[in-house]
Amino acid sequence: MEKNRLKLKVDINCDLGESYGLFKVGRDEEVMPYITSANVACGFHTGDPMVMAKTVRLAKQYNVAVGAHPGFLDLVGFGRREMKLSKEEVTNLVIYQVGALQAFAKSFGMELQHVKPHGALYNMAVNDATLAKAVVEGVAAVDSRLIVFTQIKSKVAEVAAKVGLRVAFEVFAERAYNSNGSLVSRLIAGSVIEDPMTVTERAVRMVREKNVVAMDGKVVDLDEVHTICVHGDNLKAVELAKNLRKKLEKAGIEVVSVGKFV
Amino acid sequence: MEKNRLKLKVDINCDLGESYGLFKVGRDEEVMPYITSANVACGFHTGDPMVMAKTVRLAKQYNVAVGAHPGFLDLVGFGRREMKLSKEEVTNLVIYQVGALQAFAKSFGMELQHVKPHGALYNMAVNDATLAKAVVEGVAAVDSRLIVFTQIKSKVAEVAAKVGLRVAFEVFAERAYNSNGSLVSRLIAGSVIEDPMTVTERAVRMVREKNVVAMDGKVVDLDEVHTICVHGDNLKAVELAKNLRKKLEKAGIEVVSVGKFV
Amino acid sequence: MEKNRLKLKVDINCDLGESYGLFKVGRDEEVMPYITSANVACGFHTGDPMVMAKTVRLAKQYNVAVGAHPGFLDLVGFGRREMKLSKEEVTNLVIYQVGALQAFAKSFGMELQHVKPHGALYNMAVNDATLAKAVVEGVAAVDSRLIVFTQIKSKVAEVAAKVGLRVAFEVFAERAYNSNGSLVSRLIAGSVIEDPMTVTERAVRMVREKNVVAMDGKVVDLDEVHTICVHGDNLKAVELAKNLRKKLEKAGIEVVSVGKFV
Amino acid sequence: MEKNRLKLKVDINCDLGESYGLFKVGRDEEVMPYITSANVACGFHTGDPMVMAKTVRLAKQYNVAVGAHPGFLDLVGFGRREMKLSKEEVTNLVIYQVGALQAFAKSFGMELQHVKPHGALYNMAVNDATLAKAVVEGVAAVDSRLIVFTQIKSKVAEVAAKVGLRVAFEVFAERAYNSNGSLVSRLIAGSVIEDPMTVTERAVRMVREKNVVAMDGKVVDLDEVHTICVHGDNLKAVELAKNLRKKLEKAGIEVVSVGKFV
Repeated sequence: MEKNRLKLKVDINCDLGESYGLFKVGRDEEVMPYITSANVACGFHTGDPMVMAKTVRLAKQYNVAVGAHPGFLDLVGFGRREMKLSKEEVTNLVIYQVGALQAFAKSFGMELQHVKPHGALYNMAVNDATLAKAVVEGVAAVDSRLIVFTQIKSKVAEVAAKVGLRVAFEVFAERAYNSNGSLVSRLIAGSVIEDPMTVTERAVRMVREKNVVAMDGKVVDLDEVHTICVHGDNLKAVELAKNLRKKLEKAGIEVVSVGKFV
Repeated sequence: MEKNRLKLKVDINCDLGESYGLFKVGRDEEVMPYITSANVACGFHTGDPMVMAKTVRLAKQYNVAVGAHPGFLDLVGFGRREMKLSKEEVTNLVIYQVGALQAFAKSFGMELQHVKPHGALYNMAVNDATLAKAVVEGVAAVDSRLIVFTQIKSKVAEVAAKVGLRVAFEVFAERAYNSNGSLVSRLIAGSVIEDPMTVTERAVRMVREKNVVAMDGKVVDLDEVHTICVHGDNLKAVELAKNLRKKLEKAGIEVVSVGKFV
Repeated sequence: MEKNRLKLKVDINCDLGESYGLFKVGRDEEVMPYITSANVACGFHTGDPMVMAKTVRLAKQYNVAVGAHPGFLDLVGFGRREMKLSKEEVTNLVIYQVGALQAFAKSFGMELQHVKPHGALYNMAVNDATLAKAVVEGVAAVDSRLIVFTQIKSKVAEVAAKVGLRVAFEVFAERAYNSNGSLVSRLIAGSVIEDPMTVTERAVRMVREKNVVAMDGKVVDLDEVHTICVHGDNLKAVELAKNLRKKLEKAGIEVVSVGKFV
Repeated sequence: MEKNRLKLKVDINCDLGESYGLFKVGRDEEVMPYITSANVACGFHTGDPMVMAKTVRLAKQYNVAVGAHPGFLDLVGFGRREMKLSKEEVTNLVIYQVGALQAFAKSFGMELQHVKPHGALYNMAVNDATLAKAVVEGVAAVDSRLIVFTQIKSKVAEVAAKVGLRVAFEVFAERAYNSNGSLVSRLIAGSVIEDPMTVTERAVRMVREKNVVAMDGKVVDLDEVHTICVHGDNLKAVELAKNLRKKLEKAGIEVVSVGKFV
């Protein structure tokens, strides 16, 4: 029992339900068996009602927890383009999308576990206290038991702590880190780690040691590591997710939905 | 007490929250004091997240029950153009929109009372059993306590009865009826009754006698009359709503949200 | 010269530019070398401005004529769901989309060759004289030199003839025909011909004999055969297009953009 | 003749066609008689194909020149929210929208006169050389005879000059100016001049003296004044446009479409 309490736990999350009508995106069926939390697109940057229903059903089938993945209303830009919205606009956009997904969760007898902002909204909220507050207030307005996903040194975490919302800290095993804890821009060579072995080793270290070696060699303290972000958009990504899960479990780390331990 | 139990009750409903961004529609603030149920647009045919939040807040202020008013994804046609969707598409479109509005209700500490399909979806579902089933299943999937608004001789009522969903029967005091209980097409002269006095008298009769005199003079049995549909899109409509409420109450009819007596 | 005049000619057309933002559809680069007319989506059912620019540039590179492929404003349904629009709505929807694509053609120094309605609009206009008129008037309003693509026994052809707009009759070598000249529904077994050899043989016969053997064995007169519709959405389709072109040329048929001979 | 040549000329422009489906915006019919250039919305921030057709028809009726008014794809934000797009995305968005409107102009036998970017795109392009270049290249790609509307000290003017595109400099008689030639933010008291007499006097001075008195009393040199921007969204605005035109003509200034003298 003592042993059990000390066993390390981590969640694996993945953006899913990214198809839209006849536009097919991602290998949801293939990656679902290896993850524990699904971030489901809610119709603004992608994900129509049919896709949302299908994705939640699939998550239930694999006992994967579902979360809302709200983004900017920008289908052609996939929610990756920065947009200048008022605080209230962001809060209401979050309420709307979380509510929409929550209804699908209910329709399958599931509870929503978390909310992870998408794309530009995620990145902007990490650094902008007003946007962070907007997101957190939107989530809390719908259900104060929801967990917000963000990364270390994020304004979202600061604001969530203040209002008593649980936070799950996310790490990116495939991405290089700067020594200040931020991710190295994708524009810089070496920002994305290609070698699967290296990625899984980094992941295990992140969970065990709560740190990561930055690009410049410095060791960055990660404080808390609750969930590892993986991708499911191609065969290689699915393979990586599969290996990652195997390696984590082999290392004695329990891979389980974040709602069970945060 | 006996007397109280026998007191006639009716609800007054109105489509609200029909603005979209800078596009302003309706006199929501003015009509809200006279109604008891607000059908709030959910973003597909109109109504963005900001408008939805504002509308629900206003309803709460006037103690008006809120319901979702889901429509086809057709902003430029305001959900009034027929679209051929599969049954599953309609169910999921309903789940999505009901969920989105439910989140706003929650954020103001309110419960959603009902769902009234909008425009072409409303009309098509009245006559098409498959669509009716699609709508009803969508509503029931989110919350089986929700009431569905429809009119007499509607497939929606038949299907809702089967799955145990409550139905509120809606009448249109301003519209002429055919002797089969359907509304006279707006294309026909005399289909819309302009005189406010006539409209309010018809409404009182509808609630009291449970019938209406059709265009051809025949008396149409209305079976049940739970809610009267009014409009709030112009000054005259607001005046009519105000008078209607006054006349109903003067006639000893209690005007109260449908959720309290259906 | 006499010989040249008598040489059979046919065009090969394909729907292209069907991607939308990050949603990738079709193997445009691979199929472009084998076709002579590209039907480019114009933003309503798919195809954003970036995709349109890219597709027109690619067509120019391979000396392929470009045409507008206007559809209903229904991204999530890919323009395949029937919508009930007024005649004027359809005309203006066509004008808008043809104009948008024409601007991209101009920006690459090209002329627009044709207009082929997409999906539900195409099918509905074939059978509905009002819709056919709506489409034809939209095309003629922008440029009376544009060619309209349709199939035999189409209302579109009748109406176009009346206003003096050129028509290109399209055949579908991969699809089974009914004896009345219409296509066998995709819901019926055998409606799509899988064998590449059979498809190319049918195509050659269609061009040479101006007829096709219907599913029930009867020979259907095709009157005129100007263009063969092919697909480019998967590897097999691209292979078929390649073979089709080779076989047609081997059979002494000149494969050339329809604007050069209609 | 000599006298005629020296006669001062100015254009009056107004944003029109801002309705969308059933959402009605602006008093287009009332303001059209007083203006000489109509900036017509092209469907991205507002303005659907029906509205575009109606607006161009109305402009023709009053002999008003038409121009495209392209904006960001942001209907709910009416194109007023900043969006971070790539240069190529902006160029193609301009080509698309200009082309769409050009088709409606053609359908009424008119030529497109100008392009005026809308809202956030207008403001961002004034100050950002890359965006300015993106807009100008989009316009030039469609038709190098088009005139671009912008304001003094704008990057758009600089870039247009380089590629040989004509520019019309726009002034805002109702708005207070800073001494550096920029407009005083609407957030500052006194930024909008309410008194109609003052507005018309400022307009006459702007055209005659080519300068304006800034908020701090300094005289700002306007270099060139080609067109005055007016509004048509309410009765007061229409009255102002009417008066402005009358006063300008009374002051001996010819009010004529900018395409005739730039």
